[in-house]
Amino acid sequence: MTDVSAIADFSRGTDGLLPAIAQDADSDRVLMMAWMNEEALRETLATGQAVYYSRSRKSLWRKGETSGHRQSVREIRVDCDRDTILLRVHQVGAACHEGFASCFFRSVDPDGLSLTVADERLVDPKDVYGP
Amino acid sequence: MTDVSAIADFSRGTDGLLPAIAQDADSDRVLMMAWMNEEALRETLATGQAVYYSRSRKSLWRKGETSGHRQSVREIRVDCDRDTILLRVHQVGAACHEGFASCFFRSVDPDGLSLTVADERLVDPKDVYGP
Repeated sequence: MTDVSAIADFSRGTDGLLPAIAQDADSDRVLMMAWMNEEALRETLATGQAVYYSRSRKSLWRKGETSGHRQSVREIRVDCDRDTILLRVHQVGAACHEGFASCFFRSVDPDGLSLTVADERLVDPKDVYGP
Repeated sequence: MTDVSAIADFSRGTDGLLPAIAQDADSDRVLMMAWMNEEALRETLATGQAVYYSRSRKSLWRKGETSGHRQSVREIRVDCDRDTILLRVHQVGAACHEGFASCFFRSVDPDGLSLTVADERLVDPKDVYGP
């Protein structure tokens, strides 16, 4: 089992989980934020595909396993405290389960109190996950 | 007091804190990841300057208050679950307290087991925070 303690300090995370940001390596768009445990990072390193930890399902989440919308990892960076991970990825399809390229498809309005969808939907979620 | 419940769902965060990613609006570089509570988001909206919540100091963290390295917020986005915030900012100076433009200045080596500083240091932290 690969020791990943030199890369990220999982002791700093709540329940051993660290935030992991996925950024498109071509467009530099921030695609999503998810969580990793040690095992997710190890499998990401071993396979070159983004693997997260799903807090709701309490299990590894191999991104794109259902949708096909995988993330091939081009580079992994960590921050100064080694408690946040940045994945620079090639995204197949749409990162967001709602069919948008990025999960950050809504922008706060100038009034500061409401949200507007600021991006175009790429795919219909029904075509990916079923009706 | 501004109600920010339409923007972000703070009930989804641990201890009422949500991850907030700062991205340079000009270069699209991911600069840092920090935490926000409702009050931090309200003050960010009111002032146009990034305000986070420091988990170690247990208080609001007005980014740049000591260093002068403030972040002027150009746009705020939220993700599909409204539990992660993305700030697109104009960064004065260096985002990282270690003097790098981005906190993500280290890259995981091809061996997957060690880190290399991949960026140039912009400023000497001693010049910013004192010796």
